Amino acid sequence: MGDLITMITDFGMGDAYVGIMKGVILGINPNAKIIDVCHPIEPQNIPQAAFVLSTAYKYFPPDTIHMVIVDPGVGSERKAIVVKTPVGFFVAPDNGVLSYVIEEAKAEGVETKAITLTNPIFWRSPVSPTFHGRDIFAPVAAHLSLGVPLSRMGEPIASLVTFPIHQPRRSADGTLVCHIIHIDSFGNLITDAKREDIPVGKVVMEVAGHRIEGISFTYAEGSELMALVGSSGRLEISVKNGNAARLLGAKVGDEVRLIVQQPPSLNLP
Amino acid sequence: MGDLITMITDFGMGDAYVGIMKGVILGINPNAKIIDVCHPIEPQNIPQAAFVLSTAYKYFPPDTIHMVIVDPGVGSERKAIVVKTPVGFFVAPDNGVLSYVIEEAKAEGVETKAITLTNPIFWRSPVSPTFHGRDIFAPVAAHLSLGVPLSRMGEPIASLVTFPIHQPRRSADGTLVCHIIHIDSFGNLITDAKREDIPVGKVVMEVAGHRIEGISFTYAEGSELMALVGSSGRLEISVKNGNAARLLGAKVGDEVRLIVQQPPSLNLP
Amino acid sequence: MGDLITMITDFGMGDAYVGIMKGVILGINPNAKIIDVCHPIEPQNIPQAAFVLSTAYKYFPPDTIHMVIVDPGVGSERKAIVVKTPVGFFVAPDNGVLSYVIEEAKAEGVETKAITLTNPIFWRSPVSPTFHGRDIFAPVAAHLSLGVPLSRMGEPIASLVTFPIHQPRRSADGTLVCHIIHIDSFGNLITDAKREDIPVGKVVMEVAGHRIEGISFTYAEGSELMALVGSSGRLEISVKNGNAARLLGAKVGDEVRLIVQQPPSLNLP
Repeated sequence: MGDLITMITDFGMGDAYVGIMKGVILGINPNAKIIDVCHPIEPQNIPQAAFVLSTAYKYFPPDTIHMVIVDPGVGSERKAIVVKTPVGFFVAPDNGVLSYVIEEAKAEGVETKAITLTNPIFWRSPVSPTFHGRDIFAPVAAHLSLGVPLSRMGEPIASLVTFPIHQPRRSADGTLVCHIIHIDSFGNLITDAKREDIPVGKVVMEVAGHRIEGISFTYAEGSELMALVGSSGRLEISVKNGNAARLLGAKVGDEVRLIVQQPPSLNLP
Repeated sequence: MGDLITMITDFGMGDAYVGIMKGVILGINPNAKIIDVCHPIEPQNIPQAAFVLSTAYKYFPPDTIHMVIVDPGVGSERKAIVVKTPVGFFVAPDNGVLSYVIEEAKAEGVETKAITLTNPIFWRSPVSPTFHGRDIFAPVAAHLSLGVPLSRMGEPIASLVTFPIHQPRRSADGTLVCHIIHIDSFGNLITDAKREDIPVGKVVMEVAGHRIEGISFTYAEGSELMALVGSSGRLEISVKNGNAARLLGAKVGDEVRLIVQQPPSLNLP
Repeated sequence: MGDLITMITDFGMGDAYVGIMKGVILGINPNAKIIDVCHPIEPQNIPQAAFVLSTAYKYFPPDTIHMVIVDPGVGSERKAIVVKTPVGFFVAPDNGVLSYVIEEAKAEGVETKAITLTNPIFWRSPVSPTFHGRDIFAPVAAHLSLGVPLSRMGEPIASLVTFPIHQPRRSADGTLVCHIIHIDSFGNLITDAKREDIPVGKVVMEVAGHRIEGISFTYAEGSELMALVGSSGRLEISVKNGNAARLLGAKVGDEVRLIVQQPPSLNLP
């Protein structure tokens, strides 16, 4: 077990909530190394947190403990869980924030293990009904980092809450209908189309009434409005030295249509 | 003495000021662990910093060094102080940012020790008249973390600047008149009423022309607009999956009136 | 070589990009200590990043590794470089973000060494054409912190991209024409005039139609609108407990005129 713990929350930076969780962790494991991945998740936005996590977890050592605390159901009957995969431990409410992690583990056919947290020995006491990040998730992550086995912390759980992962859909005329699933801090529009979804050949993208021909390789190479495969391996719409979301008035959920103009010539080697 | 140092400042995240203080600390104690508690305190807002600190310090190990640098009087005659209580060291300007810490130590009858910083051996030189965070507070915190005793750093000081802690007031008709003392990043309205101030029985809250019946246990359980006892042990007004401050147009200082509708029945066990 | 790595980026706090770079670094050097200096640099604003770095790097231990990732030309022909000076290592795209560092090393006549990164052994593979922060700069910084010599990472480079550092200019009538080069999170207007540029004697500043007489020593001492020498050693315009940028509608590039009213008397000792 490693000492590395990451955090994704919707607590923002304007309050002590994140710092308090760090205090709790360091009180239990003074050697913990805590890395902020992203705190300004939109309040209660579970899909956003799930996506941000999906772009990040594979870049951390495989014994890293990832906390994802976006938890509108805190204090209700929703479960608190730990999921273990070959590339990390994930400590979160059972509300879908781990959807990509679970989906990707399934797709790769790797073994996962999940428990629901039931043993209050590893929690702070008393537990506030409104801040399990402080009283359950932080101490559990800290004890995990000290090597406490999952079997002591809770009971195995077979079924986890997940939401269906957005996928582009192919329409009758061959157009790939993609959706914006995330807008990053540069205003880049990241879609649900992965590199492998993009057809070979000459393509045209339509987004918010604009037309983009072809896929650029870098931000520097593209013309003003461009499409490219971004660092998360997904089709994204960008503006050179600008903000695509602002320019296009685009928002999460909007469509990006990808049309194959000309299939690749068949007599190419 | 521990290696853990926390920071609350009004420096925001958009400048190098916080990073510079960390550089100074790590140049003196390379093993220091520095935790950001909150930097986007509203500029010069001493009561806000004092409150945010009050919600956080008890969750850190008792040998933690807490820096609180909201310092509109920097370079003036205001003193620079260190206060030691059984649960932490507090390094700050003597301007009221430690009001809750001092009040709570008094209420608990624990021993505190305070010095005014006078020994420039533990400062950077020359001292900028506008950035004591870098030139006095950061090096003092670093030396403290290395075990330098308070007695070498300054002179005992008997009287500290504090502001009166907000308290709810009981009006003639029994209504508890509370005040919003903090708005968190979710827009929750946190009041000066502590759990023990809330009368037993059926209560109604009035805030910004709205009426809230009863006190919810969790955010998930409440109806749209609700009252509950939040994680800091105080009465707060929330909106389910929403932002109470925005919905009500509420601001710090506004009243929340808590009316006892029906005292608890006397023949309950 | 130290374990201390700092980061300045234009990635903001609202995405996982910064966290991902930290994951990559800690996967290579688990003992690295990573300090955020500033992430909300305006997107693609190279001069702002260069200035923020200039205010910070001298306060870190001299073996610190500073990463500066503001990189609009990512994936293009622009080089990736490491510059070594007696006070730090600087890992950055070769686009001017190190202009102050290079200028200051020149002015002080100290020896510097620069390489262009050419050895992919020290990079992640494959390299994304849009996120060299993750795939080149982070792993290079981590390997540097482990003691890998510059000579193994790339080739010496003689000429680096820099932009001319803003200097105040003296007009025919003796007025010093300064420019706002940075606005900090308090709204203070920081100019290109250094302490040593300010003439001795009674001075008057003109900025945005306002007139300021004399130079204050501290924020507390000045009247509402004031001029002083700030913590970075530069002339700045401030408002007591307020925001000068907002009050004056000032922006980076605007002029501040400094007029000598009365030269110091010649018969002073």
